[in-house]
Amino acid sequence: MEIEQDPAYQQMINGELYLESRPLVNLRNDVRTKLMEYNLIADNDQRNTKIKSLMKSVGNRFFVEPTIYFSYGVNITIGDHFYANHDVMLCDEGKITIGNDVKFGPKVGLYTPKHPMDPAVRRTEAERTAPITIGNDVWVGGSASILPGVTLGNNVIVGAGSVVTKSFPDNVIVVGNPARILRKNEPKD
Amino acid sequence: MEIEQDPAYQQMINGELYLESRPLVNLRNDVRTKLMEYNLIADNDQRNTKIKSLMKSVGNRFFVEPTIYFSYGVNITIGDHFYANHDVMLCDEGKITIGNDVKFGPKVGLYTPKHPMDPAVRRTEAERTAPITIGNDVWVGGSASILPGVTLGNNVIVGAGSVVTKSFPDNVIVVGNPARILRKNEPKD
Amino acid sequence: MEIEQDPAYQQMINGELYLESRPLVNLRNDVRTKLMEYNLIADNDQRNTKIKSLMKSVGNRFFVEPTIYFSYGVNITIGDHFYANHDVMLCDEGKITIGNDVKFGPKVGLYTPKHPMDPAVRRTEAERTAPITIGNDVWVGGSASILPGVTLGNNVIVGAGSVVTKSFPDNVIVVGNPARILRKNEPKD
Repeated sequence: MEIEQDPAYQQMINGELYLESRPLVNLRNDVRTKLMEYNLIADNDQRNTKIKSLMKSVGNRFFVEPTIYFSYGVNITIGDHFYANHDVMLCDEGKITIGNDVKFGPKVGLYTPKHPMDPAVRRTEAERTAPITIGNDVWVGGSASILPGVTLGNNVIVGAGSVVTKSFPDNVIVVGNPARILRKNEPKD
Repeated sequence: MEIEQDPAYQQMINGELYLESRPLVNLRNDVRTKLMEYNLIADNDQRNTKIKSLMKSVGNRFFVEPTIYFSYGVNITIGDHFYANHDVMLCDEGKITIGNDVKFGPKVGLYTPKHPMDPAVRRTEAERTAPITIGNDVWVGGSASILPGVTLGNNVIVGAGSVVTKSFPDNVIVVGNPARILRKNEPKD
Repeated sequence: MEIEQDPAYQQMINGELYLESRPLVNLRNDVRTKLMEYNLIADNDQRNTKIKSLMKSVGNRFFVEPTIYFSYGVNITIGDHFYANHDVMLCDEGKITIGNDVKFGPKVGLYTPKHPMDPAVRRTEAERTAPITIGNDVWVGGSASILPGVTLGNNVIVGAGSVVTKSFPDNVIVVGNPARILRKNEPKD
């Protein structure tokens, strides 16, 4: 993918302070326009195939309800058997990596951008990113938010409306703002 | 309604573990397609009449701002004088019953599905539901979430951004994540 | 603007108990219809110019991602260099005043209406408002909600998913539900 040759893209994806370059602006405009169109396609197979085509890599059995948005698409990797309910937002300025058998409820937001703390720098539109990584068998409840730099292990359940500000290991249920472990949830044998 | 003869529908609505049957898939596809179309209708009367027609039962004075989504519609019962602001989501896999004179702020989510705790079962897409019941004169603030099994009494006010994980009686104001009673709020005589 | 001659408009904007008048209903219908149309415009300049034209006053460098909604538009004043990501909702029954160099993440909601506490009054649809005022260099994280009457100073950072129920001074980072000061954040010289 040509965008990967862009120095600003490399800074962005590596978590360095970057300014959006012309190639990044163009890619984002292109993705926005396509998503505005694709989200209106009633046929499920057509809609999902077109949306999938904007992402870096997606496995089998991909289903998203309209309206889904993301920033560039090229930073999103999703495994097999993904389901996202209505109005999910994936801010993929940083890398978003999602495992197999993952379900997102409605209005879930994954946020990788980190605006600078100093207002003078923020005003320049320079920003950093931190990746989000989600394991297998994760279920993120409706209206939950996942913040930059978070890694969730396998079989993590995020309660509806939770705000996940830090990483969690395998086999836990997390809830609240900020999300904390409610209890362990080991798989049955 | 024919869907009520479907065994999977009966399991779904009764809170048993169920797998979406072909009739349920078809109904959901039909409702999704219609909502995608109806949400784009500018004329308020036309839009509201069409959206209402997808629900089980709705009283007088029904007004929803676009874009509203729900899963099947046939599990939603709403009394008289309902108002929902923009971007409300009613996940009606389980029954959603709403009284008279109820107002929802923007981005409110009602979530009845409960995915299984065991990842191996979750992977099969089997799920359970629990109903949501909302009394008369309830006001749910913007961006609030209401979780499976919750019953709210009459004259309950849910603060904006709250996550309602359990039931509350009449005449209370609840806020927070998880929502707790902030204070009583008896009607004036 | 003629609406400013409407007595109900004056009550609304002054925080008095008001009932939506015919001119207010007409304005709201007009704004809803236009936003439904404008949010579908793929060209960024066209979309932003049209959306801007519905607001009271907007500075230079205004960019909003679709879909944005607001109630009347005429109560919204925004400074220079504003950016709002997807699915932002500005409930401008009360005045919304936003400074320069402000960024909103996706799914941010600003809520100025306050429905009456007494259910018998609420049933009449009478309501009050309280203004929201946001300083310069403010960054509101994704899925955050800002409630009626809140004033945020300059260089306030609101964490993603926060629910801001009260005002905060300059140079703080606030997080949580309800939002509390996490730490000071003075600009570097």
